[in-house]
Amino acid sequence: MTLTSLDAAALDAADPLAGHRSRFVGAEGPIVYLDGNSLGRPLRATAARMAAFVEEEWGGRLIRGWDERWFELPLTLGDRLGRVVLGAAPGQVAVGDSTTVLLYKMVRAAVAARPGRREIVVDRDNFPTDRYVVEGVARECGLTVRWLDVDPDGGMTAEDLAPVLGPDTALVVVSHVAYKSGHLADLETLTRLAHDAGAWILVDLCHSGGSVPVELDAWEIDVAVGCSYKYLNGGPGAPAYGYVAARHLADDTFAQPVQGWMGAADSFAMGPAYAPAAGIRRLLSGTPPIVGMLGLEDMVDLLEQTGVGAVRAKSVALTEYAVALVDRDLPGVRIASPRDPARRGGHVTLAHPRMREVTAALWERDVIPDFRMPDGLRIGLSPLSTSFAEVAAGVAAIGAALA
Amino acid sequence: MTLTSLDAAALDAADPLAGHRSRFVGAEGPIVYLDGNSLGRPLRATAARMAAFVEEEWGGRLIRGWDERWFELPLTLGDRLGRVVLGAAPGQVAVGDSTTVLLYKMVRAAVAARPGRREIVVDRDNFPTDRYVVEGVARECGLTVRWLDVDPDGGMTAEDLAPVLGPDTALVVVSHVAYKSGHLADLETLTRLAHDAGAWILVDLCHSGGSVPVELDAWEIDVAVGCSYKYLNGGPGAPAYGYVAARHLADDTFAQPVQGWMGAADSFAMGPAYAPAAGIRRLLSGTPPIVGMLGLEDMVDLLEQTGVGAVRAKSVALTEYAVALVDRDLPGVRIASPRDPARRGGHVTLAHPRMREVTAALWERDVIPDFRMPDGLRIGLSPLSTSFAEVAAGVAAIGAALA
Repeated sequence: MTLTSLDAAALDAADPLAGHRSRFVGAEGPIVYLDGNSLGRPLRATAARMAAFVEEEWGGRLIRGWDERWFELPLTLGDRLGRVVLGAAPGQVAVGDSTTVLLYKMVRAAVAARPGRREIVVDRDNFPTDRYVVEGVARECGLTVRWLDVDPDGGMTAEDLAPVLGPDTALVVVSHVAYKSGHLADLETLTRLAHDAGAWILVDLCHSGGSVPVELDAWEIDVAVGCSYKYLNGGPGAPAYGYVAARHLADDTFAQPVQGWMGAADSFAMGPAYAPAAGIRRLLSGTPPIVGMLGLEDMVDLLEQTGVGAVRAKSVALTEYAVALVDRDLPGVRIASPRDPARRGGHVTLAHPRMREVTAALWERDVIPDFRMPDGLRIGLSPLSTSFAEVAAGVAAIGAALA
Repeated sequence: MTLTSLDAAALDAADPLAGHRSRFVGAEGPIVYLDGNSLGRPLRATAARMAAFVEEEWGGRLIRGWDERWFELPLTLGDRLGRVVLGAAPGQVAVGDSTTVLLYKMVRAAVAARPGRREIVVDRDNFPTDRYVVEGVARECGLTVRWLDVDPDGGMTAEDLAPVLGPDTALVVVSHVAYKSGHLADLETLTRLAHDAGAWILVDLCHSGGSVPVELDAWEIDVAVGCSYKYLNGGPGAPAYGYVAARHLADDTFAQPVQGWMGAADSFAMGPAYAPAAGIRRLLSGTPPIVGMLGLEDMVDLLEQTGVGAVRAKSVALTEYAVALVDRDLPGVRIASPRDPARRGGHVTLAHPRMREVTAALWERDVIPDFRMPDGLRIGLSPLSTSFAEVAAGVAAIGAALA
């Protein structure tokens, strides 16, 4: 949809996805929720699904549930995520662990796959857990971190990356959508640069998966990780997902360090030595977090109906609308995000020296953005559960709190 | 309770915990469930709790839930587990990750804490994931695994362990209750032996936590890990818990390799470098799996009412009853578990060359034990949800399947 006016009611009336809002708990109000990029609202279906799961699937099937569905669920749900959300052919995506644990596995696997290369490239504005994992793996493996300075209102560009790449680069780590600025990286170009230097690329999809089209196969990404509790509405601490390109599985290049029974070639042989499973199952370690996958399953069902393309179109309209309202109504506030919607994900960061206290004041009034150091108020506009009226109310409330 | 007869009805009538069975989904039948040591039945409360969580806590509080409860939940629930189940003072237990991931963190931390020592001791009959983790960490850290042969119908004893300990031993890894035989290790003695040699001990509590009294502080265990989906009824793939003795936290000895934002000193400062949190929070890595903790919370509530001592008393009576019935009624079946109840956990393994097909036949009839290679049928008797009548029906069904 295109932004034909700044009239919220007109925009909501023209929104082809508006009918889906009522599927989400609480989306009719009164809370103005501008933090779907931290924790997505639950689908109403998920409450019923969880109760039914306890009574019927867990309580009714008991241990048989593992044979019947759960043992394969990390991979079958991974395949569905791949098809609906990630642009990944089957056999490359698995659900499980936290984002941090999967990042650890991926960074370890990547540097092991590029032996002799001494550097990992990551930008200083990447999400803390990405930086902490890179720092920790570099220390334990005797590598060096090449810290990139990037535009704080943007993110990693080809111009930032190209000069530091070389024969010593093992891995480039980048967020598809930057958690602070909302910058949408040009992954196809960054990947080509990394590959030209002989390095792997690891992409963090936390802030893009479910709101921005992702084409992991087409872009020739090596490995990727994302969470399911933001635009995939899996619930607080719902499991992460990991992608490993088929070529790194087919030639047995990919090996991760947390050797567990669920990633073994035969989980129930319980043999004397670990042999990794063929394919993406080798990314798994322990018993898969089935209960945590139920909300994610419901959201993949919905995204399959709507398509991520339509979600992205609304996302662009929502952020364009927010930027336009801020420009018009909040003169002291800086847009600390890319102004070009083609280079912006699903959230917009508004900078002002008083944003910490503004965020606190808004929470008191049931208007819920979040705050990111040092002066950023983020508004995350989850396309399927957020109305244009909510954006207008949120921006007005920010103005009132600043006044 | 003591076993005064082999009459199931009389035993059930005398069972002081019998009234709690109706709290569990399906415990009134018709399924005869003998696999609570693989996946505990859900509490009825958990179905309602999960639906309410989605509607009210996740859907109603949204991102505020992190400030209000979830950020601390891995530690507050860990403290409750410590008090009710593990014999651990506050500040030493955290909930999160899978058992395998926590084992990996613990083994890495332990060998780092004993620098210069080259050996990890583990028995060949330990659970596969424990062995796989040990094998993987030994390889990556350049250490040797000292494989112990133990009685396959028993488990690691002081006599097994003492001869292999020495100045090169970094770590001893042992299961409190052995997954195959049900052997209950004498942790106090094993720990003293390990400490006398200057080594750490890592205990796997998966098959004991919630059914056998555990006294981690009194026994001076160094580190321990357990799952919450067996006798703690957390649901399929519910998160694990880890214990680190306060002395290893207080002197900053304990460091784990998966550096993430939730284990950092200030998760929301999002500063340039990782600094581990003080205390047990440093065991955490990524966003805690809140949804997966709900069932565990319900079961800790119940165990707090009953006490683990009473649960253990019923557990001993249930396994004694099973052994007595097998001895009386199944002459060709060997008890592949310790006969001394003081050395046996909550399950009993019955060995016979045809147990694989027997298990399959029983499942067809809604009698659900599980099978463990090569010839073991395990009956796991979850004390709060299993009746003596269920044990009698199960043993009779095994006899019928063998006949």
